[in-house]
Amino acid sequence: MQLSIIKIGGNIIDDEVRLAAFLDNFAAVPGKKILVHGGGKLATKVAEGLGIQQQMVDGRRITDAETLKIVTMVYAGTINKNIVAQLQARGCPAIGLTGADGNTILSHKRTNANIEYGYVGDVDVVNTSLLTSLLLLDKTLIFAPITHDGKGQLLNTNADTIAQELARGLSVPFEVSLIYSFEKTGVLLNAEDEASVIGRINPSYYEELKASGAIFAGMIPKLDNAFAALRSGVARVIIGRAEELPQLLSGSSGTTIQHE
Amino acid sequence: MQLSIIKIGGNIIDDEVRLAAFLDNFAAVPGKKILVHGGGKLATKVAEGLGIQQQMVDGRRITDAETLKIVTMVYAGTINKNIVAQLQARGCPAIGLTGADGNTILSHKRTNANIEYGYVGDVDVVNTSLLTSLLLLDKTLIFAPITHDGKGQLLNTNADTIAQELARGLSVPFEVSLIYSFEKTGVLLNAEDEASVIGRINPSYYEELKASGAIFAGMIPKLDNAFAALRSGVARVIIGRAEELPQLLSGSSGTTIQHE
Repeated sequence: MQLSIIKIGGNIIDDEVRLAAFLDNFAAVPGKKILVHGGGKLATKVAEGLGIQQQMVDGRRITDAETLKIVTMVYAGTINKNIVAQLQARGCPAIGLTGADGNTILSHKRTNANIEYGYVGDVDVVNTSLLTSLLLLDKTLIFAPITHDGKGQLLNTNADTIAQELARGLSVPFEVSLIYSFEKTGVLLNAEDEASVIGRINPSYYEELKASGAIFAGMIPKLDNAFAALRSGVARVIIGRAEELPQLLSGSSGTTIQHE
Repeated sequence: MQLSIIKIGGNIIDDEVRLAAFLDNFAAVPGKKILVHGGGKLATKVAEGLGIQQQMVDGRRITDAETLKIVTMVYAGTINKNIVAQLQARGCPAIGLTGADGNTILSHKRTNANIEYGYVGDVDVVNTSLLTSLLLLDKTLIFAPITHDGKGQLLNTNADTIAQELARGLSVPFEVSLIYSFEKTGVLLNAEDEASVIGRINPSYYEELKASGAIFAGMIPKLDNAFAALRSGVARVIIGRAEELPQLLSGSSGTTIQHE
């Protein structure tokens, strides 16, 4: 049974018109599906409005206790519930979740001797039985990037990671396509040329691309992650523009990373 | 099959210690259960922090567009997800929902020629099939007082009403006990005396109490509502202090309103 897991970032969420267009496309995706959404600028706006200083260390936002309250409000409240209501209006039977709901994603607070990340969660386990039951009831799941540690603590968690962990966890019993929306049209042969998208990459072609230095160095961690997802059971990883969702799924746009 | 639907108000939610004690009791309630939570003062605090003026008309808060954003954040985000995480820590398999999630509670924007209530929803339909499936999977449902109109609009909705509508809707196939937490120990014969709680009221005793003027006039709308719930299939309505939840359920505290 096919399952599409689609991650959208803040650039779509921040733009009402682009979000509405994306949700039209998302609602029309056939079959079982999960949407994972990131944060966007609203959390920063609310934090500024409330006079909460954003602590930054090496360009990275620290999720202190006050910031965790804000991201919980904004991600699990405002953004998640508005997406759910808008999908319902499009006939899509959406249910909004965090990793705390039904204990679906259990994580632990990241610790690092050098950096205090604050209330940031690294995923330990995806509990798939409830998720599978809901998908088999033909519900569409909308995940906010919040998880919990099982001891009462909510944790801010990277949306890309949540999408990847859900994809891995649900690769039994589903045939999972994992779609990352992205600011470019796909993996480019020439970073300056949006038309130079590579349509398909398999492991041997990837080795070739790396060996010849044809691939933009900045893409290598993303592609390494995609191949790691394939090795853990995900059927394919697709990256490209959220605006082109139907084309990404049909393989006529974006880059599909696959076994063969 | 028995189902307990328990409504708690803002007085519990605003007090971390009382909330933790309540959640200990709630997690220990045997069998299937739903918690409906109200708002509390956090929404007002956040609105003040963000400089959003609360419009009041005749002592009633108007849910304008900005206020709706705040209550969605605070009720469906902060409060709902913290309760879920804290219940998970107590081994209770909680899932947080609004009426938009799974289209579980459909409402319409209240209209009144004299008062503009703003984004306030009056409930039309409770869709019970997903709720029943989740309860049969032994999940505990935690409802925030937010519903939707099916056209993409979230609506602020009274938590007492949500509890009552869920109780009515789920009275097939469940035997529903509807518990309202309240600032008093129960229905009092003497409004000044917390020890004068009436343990049980059935329709004929209620008529007697009203006829003799023995009952505090302010309780009459609450009791009329409780009897209306019984007439629509709810097995019993219990009112009393949230702190005494186990005793309310065993009938050793509070007031039980029942058919016979």
